Amino acid sequence: MNPPSFPARTTHEEIEHGNTLQPKFGPDGLIPCITQDAATGQVLMFAFMNAESLGHTLRTGRATYWSRSRNKLWVKGEESGNVQVVRELYTDCDQDVLLIKVDQTGAANAACHNGFKSCFYRRLTSLDSADFRLEFTAERLFDPATVYKKK
Amino acid sequence: MNPPSFPARTTHEEIEHGNTLQPKFGPDGLIPCITQDAATGQVLMFAFMNAESLGHTLRTGRATYWSRSRNKLWVKGEESGNVQVVRELYTDCDQDVLLIKVDQTGAANAACHNGFKSCFYRRLTSLDSADFRLEFTAERLFDPATVYKKK
Repeated sequence: MNPPSFPARTTHEEIEHGNTLQPKFGPDGLIPCITQDAATGQVLMFAFMNAESLGHTLRTGRATYWSRSRNKLWVKGEESGNVQVVRELYTDCDQDVLLIKVDQTGAANAACHNGFKSCFYRRLTSLDSADFRLEFTAERLFDPATVYKKK
Repeated sequence: MNPPSFPARTTHEEIEHGNTLQPKFGPDGLIPCITQDAATGQVLMFAFMNAESLGHTLRTGRATYWSRSRNKLWVKGEESGNVQVVRELYTDCDQDVLLIKVDQTGAANAACHNGFKSCFYRRLTSLDSADFRLEFTAERLFDPATVYKKK
């Protein structure tokens, strides 16, 4: 199915203060998307959408990204079952970023391919500028080897 | 001051499951950064850092980005007073995105140059795929004209 025609970018005033979605897809056709858990506010992941995947997201209510590594539409959870049901979609002031709030579903209820609820499962141990050690802040919810088929 | 030398990217295993920050700066030298309110989890903004701004962030404890439009270091709040004190810094599975949790300070306590707490102050009114109307979800906290000097 063809992607929908999103409204064209108009004026600075309309883009920043207006009431119409006018998403800015970059030269590569992509717009960054932050995905947040609708219930807890936890940031689950960060990925990109193109017009096709944004259209698919709105048409199906399921978060759909553009996989840059596989160069194809990426319906989140189509393989793992960890589907994201979209509850809200925000854009930022200059409309070059999207933010979606989702219900993360699936047996493991995990967004990350490494088996964690969120891709952001490590933080700097210390904010001392010379210390680059990370600590894990989450437990694995599934073993990727049992969920993803080898290809 | 020269930017710190961040640890070099090593193996897939080390990057995704290891205990060392190995940030991936893109071909343009930039890494995306999501900024969340440490207390509420609200996503405040999305911007980019380069090695210099990440180093400055860690050294000062104040969120410092790279302004692509002005092509310079951007100490958040240096003009508006709405400084962001960094509490935590996360990275994602493949370490090509950062997430910081901050205390948003300043008179207006606002991250967005348009005077809103968060840059994500509008959402789609309906998730109907043919409806591109936005609704405002926040009130302005300051009038930008009174805060930013004309240049």
